[in-house]
Amino acid sequence: MHINGKHYHTIWVKENDPKTIQVIDQRLLPFEFKIRDLKTIADTFIAIKDMCVRGAPLIGVTAAYGMYLGLLHLNEKDNLTTKINEFSQYLKSSRPTAVNLKFAVDLVLDKIKSAKSINEKTKVAFEIANQLKQDEIENCKKIGKNGVRFIQEISKAKKGETVNILTHCNAGWLACVDYGTATSPMYLAHEKGIKIHVWVDETRPRNQGARLTAYELEQQGIPHTVIADNTGGLLMQKGMVDMVIVGSDRTSANGDVANKIGTYLKALAAHDNNIPFYVALPLSTIDFEMEDGIKNIPIEQRDPDEVKYVEGWNNDEITRVRITSENSPALNYGFDVTPAKYVTALITEKGVAKANMNDIEKLNK
Amino acid sequence: MHINGKHYHTIWVKENDPKTIQVIDQRLLPFEFKIRDLKTIADTFIAIKDMCVRGAPLIGVTAAYGMYLGLLHLNEKDNLTTKINEFSQYLKSSRPTAVNLKFAVDLVLDKIKSAKSINEKTKVAFEIANQLKQDEIENCKKIGKNGVRFIQEISKAKKGETVNILTHCNAGWLACVDYGTATSPMYLAHEKGIKIHVWVDETRPRNQGARLTAYELEQQGIPHTVIADNTGGLLMQKGMVDMVIVGSDRTSANGDVANKIGTYLKALAAHDNNIPFYVALPLSTIDFEMEDGIKNIPIEQRDPDEVKYVEGWNNDEITRVRITSENSPALNYGFDVTPAKYVTALITEKGVAKANMNDIEKLNK
Repeated sequence: MHINGKHYHTIWVKENDPKTIQVIDQRLLPFEFKIRDLKTIADTFIAIKDMCVRGAPLIGVTAAYGMYLGLLHLNEKDNLTTKINEFSQYLKSSRPTAVNLKFAVDLVLDKIKSAKSINEKTKVAFEIANQLKQDEIENCKKIGKNGVRFIQEISKAKKGETVNILTHCNAGWLACVDYGTATSPMYLAHEKGIKIHVWVDETRPRNQGARLTAYELEQQGIPHTVIADNTGGLLMQKGMVDMVIVGSDRTSANGDVANKIGTYLKALAAHDNNIPFYVALPLSTIDFEMEDGIKNIPIEQRDPDEVKYVEGWNNDEITRVRITSENSPALNYGFDVTPAKYVTALITEKGVAKANMNDIEKLNK
Repeated sequence: MHINGKHYHTIWVKENDPKTIQVIDQRLLPFEFKIRDLKTIADTFIAIKDMCVRGAPLIGVTAAYGMYLGLLHLNEKDNLTTKINEFSQYLKSSRPTAVNLKFAVDLVLDKIKSAKSINEKTKVAFEIANQLKQDEIENCKKIGKNGVRFIQEISKAKKGETVNILTHCNAGWLACVDYGTATSPMYLAHEKGIKIHVWVDETRPRNQGARLTAYELEQQGIPHTVIADNTGGLLMQKGMVDMVIVGSDRTSANGDVANKIGTYLKALAAHDNNIPFYVALPLSTIDFEMEDGIKNIPIEQRDPDEVKYVEGWNNDEITRVRITSENSPALNYGFDVTPAKYVTALITEKGVAKANMNDIEKLNK
C-alpha cells in the first residue's frame, strides 16, 4: 500500500543489494517514517524482539529472511549443522509466543536440508523467504476479494451512500506484507470506488488502532475517524455503523475467535444492534484441532506498564506518560475470545464460512 | 474519605476563615495533591470552568458557595438585584450543561429572596451552601447503605471470599463531597470488613477511572486493579467479576441509564455472563418526565483532542502526548445510554428499584 504516495511493502530486499533486507520501523509510526536495514541475523533478531516489525505474518517473513542473512555470513570453516541449529533457536527466542515465527523458521530449516553447500542453502533460504512473502501478499489479496462483496451489498442496499465499517486494533497491511486481513476488503472496496468510512478503535493499551490503522487509512486516502474503545456501542445504537470487520490471532474449529482484547465487547454490541460482525483471517490462524476456543485458547498476560503508561508524541519525540498513581496495580490481558454465536462469518483466502464446525471444516479441504 | 491518612471532603470552609472556601485541585490528581483557596466568585467560576472541581454534585455545591462569595464582597452602593442576577448568570455559564449547577444557583436565588440586607442575604447563601453540601453527603451515605447488601449477599454466597466489583469512570467521592455514588457501597462494605477488590476501567478518553477512582481506592486502602476499558468482557467470561456498579449522569423514568461512554458495553458483557449490573445514583438525576432514555437523552459531543491526546505524568509534570497521526480525525461522545433491560437495579438514597417505570415511580413518592 502507499506511504507518502509511494508503494511499499512492510519488508523487501534492498534495490541492487540483495544482502540487505529493509523494513519500516513500526515503533515510530505514525510519528516518523524510517526504514531500517537488516544486514545480519542479529539485526533481524533485534527488529523482531524490539517490535520494529510486528504482526504475525510479518514476523514470520522477517524470520525467514533472518535465516537467509545468517547463512549469508557463514564460511566454510563453520560447523554448518551446529550453526543452522543455533540460528533457528536464536530467531525463535525473539518472540517466543509467535506461531508464525516458528512456522517460518521451521519451513526454511526443512527446505535447506537437501541443499549441500552453504551457497546452495543460502540461495534456497532466500527463495523461501521471497516465496513466503509472496504467499502472504496473495492470501491477503484473496481475503479482500472474498470479503469485498459484503461491503458492496451494504453499499447497494444504501443506494451508494457511505458504508460505515468499524474495526478494532491493526489487522492491516503493516501487520502483514501488503493489503492486511481486516483492511483488505476495505482497500479493495475503496479501489472499486465504493464509498466507505472506517471507525477506528484506538485499541488500548497499545493503541495500534489510533497509531497504525488510522495511519494506513490516512495514507491510502480512505475517510476514517479515530474513537475511544468505549465509543463503538453508542455508534451502533445510533445507526452509525453498518458492519464490523476485525482480524484474528487464533480461531478454533468451532468458530470462537481470539483477537485483540476488546473485540468481544464490540461483537456483543454488534449482536445487540443487528449489525454484521465479520472476522477476516488467513487459514493458517485456524486451529482445526481445537474444538472449543472459549475454553482452550490461552490468553497472554502482558506487562501491566502498558496499561499504566501511554506512549505518544510530544516535543518532537516519542514520550511515555503515566496515567495512574504510581502505586495502583494494573492487569494487562492481550486478547479475548469472541464466542462463535456472535460472529456473522469468517472471511479467509479460501472463501467465506459461517462460524461453525461444519462450514469451517470445508475450508480445509 | 481519606487522602494521605487524613479525612477530607472535596470542598470545605477554611478553618477559622469563613471568607475562604477550599477545594482539592482535581486536575492534578493523582499526581499532585494541592488545595486551592476560593476567595471570590471569580475564583469559583474558574475552578468550575477549568475543572479544578468536577462531578455534578460537587459542581452544584461549589456554585452555591460561589453565590455566597459573590454576596460577601458586595457593598451598600451596589444595585443588589442587578448584581445578584449577574452572579447567577455568570456562574451558570461556567459549565452550561451541568444541571446541578443551575439547580444550586437557583436554590440560592430563591432562598435569599426574602432576606432584606446584603448581610442577611450573604448569611442565608452561606447556610444554603452548607446545607447543600450536607445533603450531598447524606444522600451518598444512604446510597451506600442501600447498596451494600448486594455486596454482602455475594460475599456470603462466596463464603467470605473476595467480592470482585467492576466499575467504570469516577462515580466516587471526588465527584461528590464524600462517599460517592457507585463507590459508596464499596466503602461501606470495606468498613464492615467485607473483602472486596475493585476492577477499575481506565475510562478513556479522560481516564477518570485510572486517575481518580484508582486513587480514591488506593487512599482508602481498598484492593483494586486498573484495566484497559477493553478488558472487562474477558474478566467476566473468566469468572473474575462478581458484580458491576456504575454511576449515572441521567436516568429516564423507564430505567435507561446515561453514563460515561463505554458503560453500555460493560452492561452487555455483564448480561452475557449473568453478572448483576447495578447503577448507584441520587434521585435528583432521574428524569421522571422522560419516558424513553434511549430515544431522548441527548449525548454531548466533546473536543476530539481528548481522543487524540492523552494526559499523564512525565518528568515531574503533567504532559500531553498525541497518540494518532496529526491528520487523523477523531470523534468524542461523552456518554452512552444503557437500555433498562440490562440494568439489574437502581440504588438510590430513597431505596432500590428495578429498572422499570413502575418501580422507579415509587421512589418518587
